[in-house]
Amino acid sequence: MIWFTEYWTENVGLTVKANEVKRIKSKYQEILILETPEFGRMLVLDGLIQTTERDEFIYHEMLVHPAMLAHPDPKRVLIIGGGDGGSVREALKHPSVEEVHLCEIDEEVIIASEKYFPSIAGKLRDPKVKIFIADGNAFLEEKKDYYDIIILDSSDPVGASEVLFTKEFYSKVKASLRKDGVMVAQTESPMIQEEYFKKAISEIRKVFRNFGVYLAFIPTYPSGMWSFTIASEYIDVINTKRMEKVKELKTKYFCDSIYACLFTVPKFVEDIIKKS
Amino acid sequence: MIWFTEYWTENVGLTVKANEVKRIKSKYQEILILETPEFGRMLVLDGLIQTTERDEFIYHEMLVHPAMLAHPDPKRVLIIGGGDGGSVREALKHPSVEEVHLCEIDEEVIIASEKYFPSIAGKLRDPKVKIFIADGNAFLEEKKDYYDIIILDSSDPVGASEVLFTKEFYSKVKASLRKDGVMVAQTESPMIQEEYFKKAISEIRKVFRNFGVYLAFIPTYPSGMWSFTIASEYIDVINTKRMEKVKELKTKYFCDSIYACLFTVPKFVEDIIKKS
Repeated sequence: MIWFTEYWTENVGLTVKANEVKRIKSKYQEILILETPEFGRMLVLDGLIQTTERDEFIYHEMLVHPAMLAHPDPKRVLIIGGGDGGSVREALKHPSVEEVHLCEIDEEVIIASEKYFPSIAGKLRDPKVKIFIADGNAFLEEKKDYYDIIILDSSDPVGASEVLFTKEFYSKVKASLRKDGVMVAQTESPMIQEEYFKKAISEIRKVFRNFGVYLAFIPTYPSGMWSFTIASEYIDVINTKRMEKVKELKTKYFCDSIYACLFTVPKFVEDIIKKS
Repeated sequence: MIWFTEYWTENVGLTVKANEVKRIKSKYQEILILETPEFGRMLVLDGLIQTTERDEFIYHEMLVHPAMLAHPDPKRVLIIGGGDGGSVREALKHPSVEEVHLCEIDEEVIIASEKYFPSIAGKLRDPKVKIFIADGNAFLEEKKDYYDIIILDSSDPVGASEVLFTKEFYSKVKASLRKDGVMVAQTESPMIQEEYFKKAISEIRKVFRNFGVYLAFIPTYPSGMWSFTIASEYIDVINTKRMEKVKELKTKYFCDSIYACLFTVPKFVEDIIKKS
C-alpha cells in the first residue's frame, strides 16, 4: 500500500491509502486507477480524484437529476466529458429519454472505466447511448438547436477543460440547446476554488437568462463542498420543480427534500454568487 | 513548514502545511497550535483538528443558533466542552441571554485559546459568562431544572468525551434543562463515522421525545459532512421555527434559507437516521 495524496491547493490535500491497479499515459492525461480500502476503486486524472466507487453516486445524481427535472420532457441529452459513464447511467433513469450522446475527448478514460468501474460505466453500451470521441468545444458546432439537456461533466478548468468554463463555450452550449433546453455544469468548490467558482458563474450568467447554483457534500472533492450551476434561457430553473417525478427515480442522495431545498446555500456562498 | 496530517480513519486523512506554534501537554490531552497558510491558526487536540480561524464560523454558528432559536426565550445557556470560546461568542448574539455557563474539563484549552485565538475566544470574559473547570458529567448533577439551552460542544466520542455520547449522560442533560429546554450536540460525520453517528442518535432519541438531525459543510472535519442533533422533551424542534429572529443575527453561514431547510438531509443519511 502507498499513500496517494491529492493536493487541493499547495497547502492542503486529501491523503488516501491505496494500491495502484493501473497507470495509463493517454494522449491527453495520466489515468491512474487505485484500489483504496476507504473508497473502493478510485479514478484519478492528472493527479486529481475524479470518481470513487463509494461516493460517486452523490456527484452523478446531483449533477444530472436537477437539470433533467427542470425540463418538461427531456428526450435528447448530451454529456460533455463524463467518460466514466456515471452521468449516462443517471440520465437513463428518466423514461422520457430517447438518446444520450456522450462526447468525451479521451477514449482511454472510457476503456479504463468499462474495465475497472463496471458499476459506474455499465450503461455506456445501452442502445440509447451514442459515444463520440471528440473535443466538446468542436462537437457543439455540429449540433445546433438539438438537445434538451446538456450536462458539462468536466474536470477542473485547467488544461483541456479550461475552455469549457468560458462565455464563448457557454454560448455554444446555448446554441446547441433547443428553445426550452437546460444546461448544468459542475462548477468547483466555493470554499477551496473560489476564483474558479466565481468565474464559472459570472460567465454562465452572461449567456443564460436563468441560472441557479446548488451544492452537494462530496467527501473526495476539495473541501467536501461542491457546486453545480444549472441554467436555461427559457425555463425558470430555480422555481420550476417537478416534485412528482422524484419518487420514480432510484437514488441514494437526491430525494424530495433535497430537491425542494436545492438552491439553499450558506450565506457566504450566496454572497459570492451575488458578486460574481 | 511541516505537513500535519489528521487521519480520519486508518485509510484516509487531511494533510495541511503548517508551522508549529505551540505544543502543550495538559492533564487530559496534547494541545497543538499550528499556523497554516490555508486555514490560518488551527487548534488540534490529541491529533484531531478542533477549530481553524478560517472555517470555525460554520461549526459554531450551526451548533448554536438552531437550538437558541428553537427556544422561545433562552436566558440560561450551558456549554459543555467548547473551551475555544466559539460557542460562547455565538450564544451571546441572542439578546435574551442572561448567563452563559461554560463547563470545560481542560483549563489549558481555554488559556491557549485566549492567547492564540482571540477572534474565537474573545467573549470568554464577557460579564454574562461564567467558566467552570469541571467534568461535564459531574457538573450536570449540581444543576437540576436550570438551563434553557445545553450545547454539547465536545470532541469525538473517544477518551474523555466518550461518556458524553451515552443515554445516561443525555438523561442528565434532560434533568438539567427546564421544562421547555433544548439541547444540541455535535454528532460526528455520517459518511466517515457512521457508527458514532448512529450511536449518538439512537441514545438521544431514547431520552428526548423530539429530535432532529441536520448537517453542515465543514472542510476541516472528516469527510466535510458534519452532523448536529437537536432535541427537546417539550418543543417540537423540527417544526418550531422563529424566522423573524434570524435577520437580527450577524452570521456568515447560517441564514434564513439555511434555517428554513435545516433538517433536509440526503436520502442515505435519512435512511441511517431512521434505522438508528
